[in-house]
This record gives sequence, C-alpha cells and structure tokens, in this order.
Amino acid sequence: MPIVTIQVTREGSRPGNHSVTADEKAQLIKGVSQLLLDVLNKPLEATFVVIEEVDTENWGWGGLPVELYRKQLARKPA
Amino acid sequence: MPIVTIQVTREGSRPGNHSVTADEKAQLIKGVSQLLLDVLNKPLEATFVVIEEVDTENWGWGGLPVELYRKQLARKPA
Amino acid sequence: MPIVTIQVTREGSRPGNHSVTADEKAQLIKGVSQLLLDVLNKPLEATFVVIEEVDTENWGWGGLPVELYRKQLARKPA
Amino acid sequence: MPIVTIQVTREGSRPGNHSVTADEKAQLIKGVSQLLLDVLNKPLEATFVVIEEVDTENWGWGGLPVELYRKQLARKPA
Amino acid sequence: MPIVTIQVTREGSRPGNHSVTADEKAQLIKGVSQLLLDVLNKPLEATFVVIEEVDTENWGWGGLPVELYRKQLARKPA
Amino acid sequence: MPIVTIQVTREGSRPGNHSVTADEKAQLIKGVSQLLLDVLNKPLEATFVVIEEVDTENWGWGGLPVELYRKQLARKPA
Repeated sequence: MPIVTIQVTREGSRPGNHSVTADEKAQLIKGVSQLLLDVLNKPLEATFVVIEEVDTENWGWGGLPVELYRKQLARKPA
Repeated sequence: MPIVTIQVTREGSRPGNHSVTADEKAQLIKGVSQLLLDVLNKPLEATFVVIEEVDTENWGWGGLPVELYRKQLARKPA
Repeated sequence: MPIVTIQVTREGSRPGNHSVTADEKAQLIKGVSQLLLDVLNKPLEATFVVIEEVDTENWGWGGLPVELYRKQLARKPA
Repeated sequence: MPIVTIQVTREGSRPGNHSVTADEKAQLIKGVSQLLLDVLNKPLEATFVVIEEVDTENWGWGGLPVELYRKQLARKPA
Repeated sequence: MPIVTIQVTREGSRPGNHSVTADEKAQLIKGVSQLLLDVLNKPLEATFVVIEEVDTENWGWGGLPVELYRKQLARKPA
Repeated sequence: MPIVTIQVTREGSRPGNHSVTADEKAQLIKGVSQLLLDVLNKPLEATFVVIEEVDTENWGWGGLPVELYRKQLARKPA
C-alpha cells in the first residue's frame, strides 16, 4: 500500500507548455507504480500516487522564490 | 495538538455534486476532531484538520490516472 | 481513495501509558474510515490511514517545544 | 537538504489583502532558509521551501471550519 | 526541484527481510529521480526523495490495521 | 493556524553531534513561529511546528542516497 507524493512546480516541461500535461502525469503515475512493483514487489493496485503542483511563487530555493533563484544561477559564471 | 490531513479527489460524493460541499467538509472536521477526543482524549481546540482536494488527473491508482483505473475495474467481471 | 494522515505526539493518552496503544490506533483507523464512508460515500477498502507519532521535543506550539508550552499554560491564571 | 512546508489559510494578513502576497511569501522563504543556516548550518542552496495555501473552508479547528471557530472564540467572554 | 515522498510499510519485500533494505532504497531513489528526468526534464540534482517507513500497526486499510485487513482478504473466496 | 513541517536528515550539525539537538530544535521552533508572527501576523499560540528527522539512507539527492551524492560532489573539481 505505498503512497507516493510528487511535488513539482506548476510550469511546463517544454517551451509552449504552461503546466504539467495530463499525459506527463499519466507517465509519472505509471512509472512510479511500476518502480514499486519492480523494487518492492508491491502490486500496482496497492499504490496510490498524488501529484501536487505548486505555483512558482510558493516554491523557495536558495532563500528566494525559485524563479529569482534560477535567474541568479543563470547569471553566475560557471 | 493533533494534525489530521484528509486528501480526497475533487469530485462530488453524489450525482449532481461536482466537488466536496462545504457541509460535507464541516462534517469531516467535526467527526474527526470528535474521534480524537473520544479515543485519545485530545480537546477539540487542540486539533487542526486540513482537507486537500486533488484533481482526478493528479491521483493515480493501479498505475493509471484514477478515472481510467475505475473504468478498467468496472469492465472486469466480478 | 482518500488518504488520511493523523499526526500526534508520541505519548500516552492516559496515566500509565507512554505511547498511543495498538488498540487506540485501531480505533482511530476504524473511526476515520467509517467517517469517510458516512460523509463522502467512500468504501472502506478505498481509504488509507497513516498514523505518525512525533516525539514531543519535535513538536512546537506557542513558539516552544510543546512540553514547555504546556507548563507555561498551566502556570497561567485562567 | 532541508524541506520546509508552510501551510497557512488562504487569506490576507492585513485589511485589504485577500491572500498571502508575493512579497510576504518571499519573506517567509528568506527567513526560514536563513534560520536553517543559522541553527543547523545548512547552506541556503540546500533548502527547499513549499508554501501551501488552504481555503478557510478546508481548515478545521475546534471541531469547526476555522471561520466559524473564530466567531465562536470572539463571542466568548475572556 | 521536485520533491518525491514515498511512504511504505516497514517490512521486508521478500521472505527473510524485515525491512526495506538500503539497496532497495537506493533503487527507489535512482528510479524515481530518473523518471522525473525522463518525463519532466528535471535534472537529477534538482530532485529530493524522502522515504518514510511506517510501522504496520500505524497503517490502516479497509477500516483495519493493515495486517488484519490482509488476513481478512486472504480468507475471502476469490 | 499555520502548520510548519521541517524535514531534515538525522545527523549532527557540527562535529561530535550525531543528531539535531533538543536545543537546536527549540531554536527552530522559536524562529519559525516568530517569523510567522512578523510576516503574517499569526499569534505564536496559533502555530504548530513539526520536525521530522529522516535517516540519511532514506533521503535521496542527485539520484543517489544523500551520503553517496555528497561524496560524489566532494570529488568533483570546482
């Protein structure tokens, strides 16, 4: 009976997308349920998956809202 | 000081409803707070309840988004 | 497919108990699963319950570890 | 690699505001990331912060939806 | 910056094991981080994974502690 | 009524410590409760804080258990 919670920012994974698509969500659900079957022998029907999309202004990294932090990283010399 | 988190899909419990109603939420809050008083002797004012509604495409079961999984179950012979 | 998470401090509910007993846990599981059946029509077998016991030094209230806060409350005149 | 989750009701902190503002969110992210650096020596870039805003009808306290509970408290003599 | 939380019962996946092994945990971490790279293009170093092991008496299913529920399922004719 | 959850690895912040100390936990509780008072005007007594310590083998980063990942980072030229 595993429960898997996946938290991601609410944004597209590729140019033109503005959020995680239904198809991407289905791939995440399928992949992680299969992983629990492969590794821990948990039957697919015993696994719950919950995807939580979080607005970027609600996600912090490096002491900053994540979009600001990414800009700061991008400005840094490698 | 218990914290109870209730995660449910965002959908109606009965035909005609499209989400959990405010009255149903109040019943959940009342019922679970009372349960913690009855079983663990926790005063009502010490219990927090958070209800999280999750879009059905964000909820996985059986390796599939839950609405697909339910359709699959419904097609199966008992 | 509700998921209910119940977080409580790891301590006994009555003198002589030092933690939540197995019987109390079973009552919490039964009660909250029944509540979701009664209020939202969720079948018992679709509800997962997870009980998390938290050491009192890991639980904060009133800006203090909870045991200190309770002592402070107890000293206050009503 | 700390993860800090801050759950608050979706409402303004001051008259005229109807939700937590982007600036308040940035202050929460900055403050809590700094706290983990000061107390546990965790570098800022190792801390993730997630702010979850919860509708008031989804938040229970005292066995009631929180707005009802606050009204009840306000009516009580001190 | 995804965060993945995997909650499982604290028990072995195979006879002779009494808990999830360090190697199984490493496989879960690797698999789910790779999945987020494949599906959402999230770099490995941006994903945090937290595995929570829950004692079986703290996990409820079917209105019962999970070990009791499994015994009940096993007794049922197919 | 904010709820703040702080998840950290179970390890000492300084040489000689093997876990987060009670004093460090008290500082985290005090600091984050004060932050919610300062930023969102939440009274101290309305904030709950839960600190979750996670074994390092249960924490993943960079597709690896965190201690392996740190070793890998340490070997990399800057």
